[in-house]
Amino acid sequence: MPRRIVIIGAHAAGVDAASAARKTDRTAEITLITDEKHPGYSRCGLPFVIGGHISSFSNLIVFPPAYFQMMKINLRTETKATAINTQNKTVDLQRKDGGSETIPYDSLIIATGASPFMPPIKGKEKQGIYSLRTLGDGEAIDQAVKNGAKTALVMGAGLIGLETAIGLQERGLQVTVVEMLPQVLPQMLDADMAKAIQEMLEQKGINIVVGKAVEEIVGAEKATGVVAGGQQYNADLVVSAFGVRANTQLAQNAGIALGDTKAIKTNARMETSIKDIYAVGDCAESVHIVTQKPALMQFGTVAVRHGKVAGINAAGGYALFTGVLGSSISRLYDTDVGSTGLTEGAAQRARIETITGTITSKTKADYYPGALPIKVKLVVEKESQKIIGAQIIGGEEVTQRINAISFAIQKQMTARELAKADTAYAPPVCETWEPLVLAAEMVLMKLR
Amino acid sequence: MPRRIVIIGAHAAGVDAASAARKTDRTAEITLITDEKHPGYSRCGLPFVIGGHISSFSNLIVFPPAYFQMMKINLRTETKATAINTQNKTVDLQRKDGGSETIPYDSLIIATGASPFMPPIKGKEKQGIYSLRTLGDGEAIDQAVKNGAKTALVMGAGLIGLETAIGLQERGLQVTVVEMLPQVLPQMLDADMAKAIQEMLEQKGINIVVGKAVEEIVGAEKATGVVAGGQQYNADLVVSAFGVRANTQLAQNAGIALGDTKAIKTNARMETSIKDIYAVGDCAESVHIVTQKPALMQFGTVAVRHGKVAGINAAGGYALFTGVLGSSISRLYDTDVGSTGLTEGAAQRARIETITGTITSKTKADYYPGALPIKVKLVVEKESQKIIGAQIIGGEEVTQRINAISFAIQKQMTARELAKADTAYAPPVCETWEPLVLAAEMVLMKLR
Repeated sequence: MPRRIVIIGAHAAGVDAASAARKTDRTAEITLITDEKHPGYSRCGLPFVIGGHISSFSNLIVFPPAYFQMMKINLRTETKATAINTQNKTVDLQRKDGGSETIPYDSLIIATGASPFMPPIKGKEKQGIYSLRTLGDGEAIDQAVKNGAKTALVMGAGLIGLETAIGLQERGLQVTVVEMLPQVLPQMLDADMAKAIQEMLEQKGINIVVGKAVEEIVGAEKATGVVAGGQQYNADLVVSAFGVRANTQLAQNAGIALGDTKAIKTNARMETSIKDIYAVGDCAESVHIVTQKPALMQFGTVAVRHGKVAGINAAGGYALFTGVLGSSISRLYDTDVGSTGLTEGAAQRARIETITGTITSKTKADYYPGALPIKVKLVVEKESQKIIGAQIIGGEEVTQRINAISFAIQKQMTARELAKADTAYAPPVCETWEPLVLAAEMVLMKLR
Repeated sequence: MPRRIVIIGAHAAGVDAASAARKTDRTAEITLITDEKHPGYSRCGLPFVIGGHISSFSNLIVFPPAYFQMMKINLRTETKATAINTQNKTVDLQRKDGGSETIPYDSLIIATGASPFMPPIKGKEKQGIYSLRTLGDGEAIDQAVKNGAKTALVMGAGLIGLETAIGLQERGLQVTVVEMLPQVLPQMLDADMAKAIQEMLEQKGINIVVGKAVEEIVGAEKATGVVAGGQQYNADLVVSAFGVRANTQLAQNAGIALGDTKAIKTNARMETSIKDIYAVGDCAESVHIVTQKPALMQFGTVAVRHGKVAGINAAGGYALFTGVLGSSISRLYDTDVGSTGLTEGAAQRARIETITGTITSKTKADYYPGALPIKVKLVVEKESQKIIGAQIIGGEEVTQRINAISFAIQKQMTARELAKADTAYAPPVCETWEPLVLAAEMVLMKLR
């Protein structure tokens, strides 16, 4: 009898799990379940459709139905998994037509993702509070703009909040972002680096209010603004970008253990506390490569890596997940901002003593036309001098510098080794002394 | 008495040596000698001035006279070092005015660079054969273009050859490049990768002739073309780009030992075979990080790193040079081409067995407008599965991918570790699955 693999959730983690399972076991019966109409679209692209960089939401559907046919994956859209029976090894499903059924599994992969989080704010039940998680969310915001919204208020200055704010501003709206913490991008950046991003956004005309919690969402039935720090901000469009929380209810109901981060606890094979059940993507915990402690990194790259490992294991193969560093990147207008490993603040909270090195340089030779500024902050563990984090803001070529430092962290490179590293140079693409190397040199100067 | 440091040669290696020496010993007497009129200009920028991307050759002078004044470096331009007396510890100088003098040193740094190499070809003594090494060379080519040259023939398809060919084509000339070896960029790329570059250049209208040695340079007194592979190619402008050879005569005359590469032999402190004499830059040998054998890498980045180490040591400090990988990059039209570590061919010659992985991907999410193609070839040592080289051709963000792999090689990352690496993702700047990771995955598939 062929192995029956059931996967709940059909985005980055779920689809990659299904694909990896198929490549591992060509005869398995693979069922992929999603309560959405469209599987396998790119959430990360949503703000860029709103901003008009991508012409249509449908462009984001990276896995069309033909893909699932080709991979012989039994795709069940608009179907909700309502319960997992770990004794009988079955999943209860509710179909769109109202009918229900129960399907058996040999291996089960939970990829239930995460949902926008709304803190207990007065007025949070009002209508017309938008979030940006699904294609439908994106279409709703797009429609509100088309209906004539002129002003927007975004609650939360994380990546999604800022990307959405920019998308709306690019569509001509006056945008205000309110953030409870005293800086933008608090998970990615330390305050010194975040300041540069905040100033850039303000220069572009976005109103940034930091250090003020949203106390109330105002409006009759429909949200028409917020009160934050005692001041009222009115807006035609109110967007909630407080972040997301792992969808764990289905797993919890089945007795599957959660971890310290309140996401589903997993081991290196992405197995949960219950045999033959795996968890992947935004609902699943990982181990942080630097701290070696549980970490929840809800990024697309982590999701696909989780999915691949779980898919191989669920299909009878053997694969390990090696941990997360939280490497992340975004392009805000023409500025790339990226981060990997621990910020100075996160290191402090983990009681790791650090030395940092921060430098400003250019992305091309000084004399080459079009050279753009780039700023690098390197975070180094004080005793071992090992690199444990980096934050980079620049006009180009930030992403791969983040990846370079991610590799360095994973291979325990020291600041001295980085300061001595062999790097490439040509006037149109970089400076003779690579900014990463200069940042390492700054660290060494402080260590002397 | 202050320490007397004499440095012969005032480009990347010499100037960085002088600067590092000054930072190490604030009271040293530092003398920097060059037979050129301008010290400290960027040779790497020359082709881009010819192409019109940089408005003037003088823009390339990155270290103006004020720099040397500020650093209290005694700069002697248009002054030739004619002999080193290692017994008395003196250097003989010949001034522009014809006069000569002898100056003493406590530490001597040889940064005599390299000179264009001309093989023993019939007609090589003819006038009007241009090379591109100095500001004067660049100005001469520029003048020839201004004087109405319509066609150019470039001998040699290395980086300088191709960059110069492109610069001339951008100025409107019909350009032919002749290369003895069967591919372009033979030091950077394997034949399979070089093919893509050759096709791109041909599409842009450059005539590439590979696998044909130049047999004769023709013309009455002035070169007016070449014969290669029995065929004559006429041109208004004949450019020699056969590569450069280390300038070692001064060192050899002083009894300083050369290494296997025929450049000046050095140890990790950049010391030569004679006490208190250092060698740096294009005239000095290094150790290759992968092969651990002598290697001559004549790049600006190596030169500045050499210079820094020698400058610190010559001034009484302590610094080690950790070796070279040959990381290099160029932008040819809108295509970036980069390389680090060993090519498959170089590995074969070093009797290292390899597995390679080559993939083609995009520089942005597939659905994001403006995504450009990128091709990665990864070279892995077969038994240890350690990464030992990479070649990348792509529309953007190639440089830092080269640096990322350089770091990976230096920290002995395996293909498996790279395939599992934590990377950053956002639709405008990269794909979910990083091309470097996919190339590593290709290697693993072959290893299974």
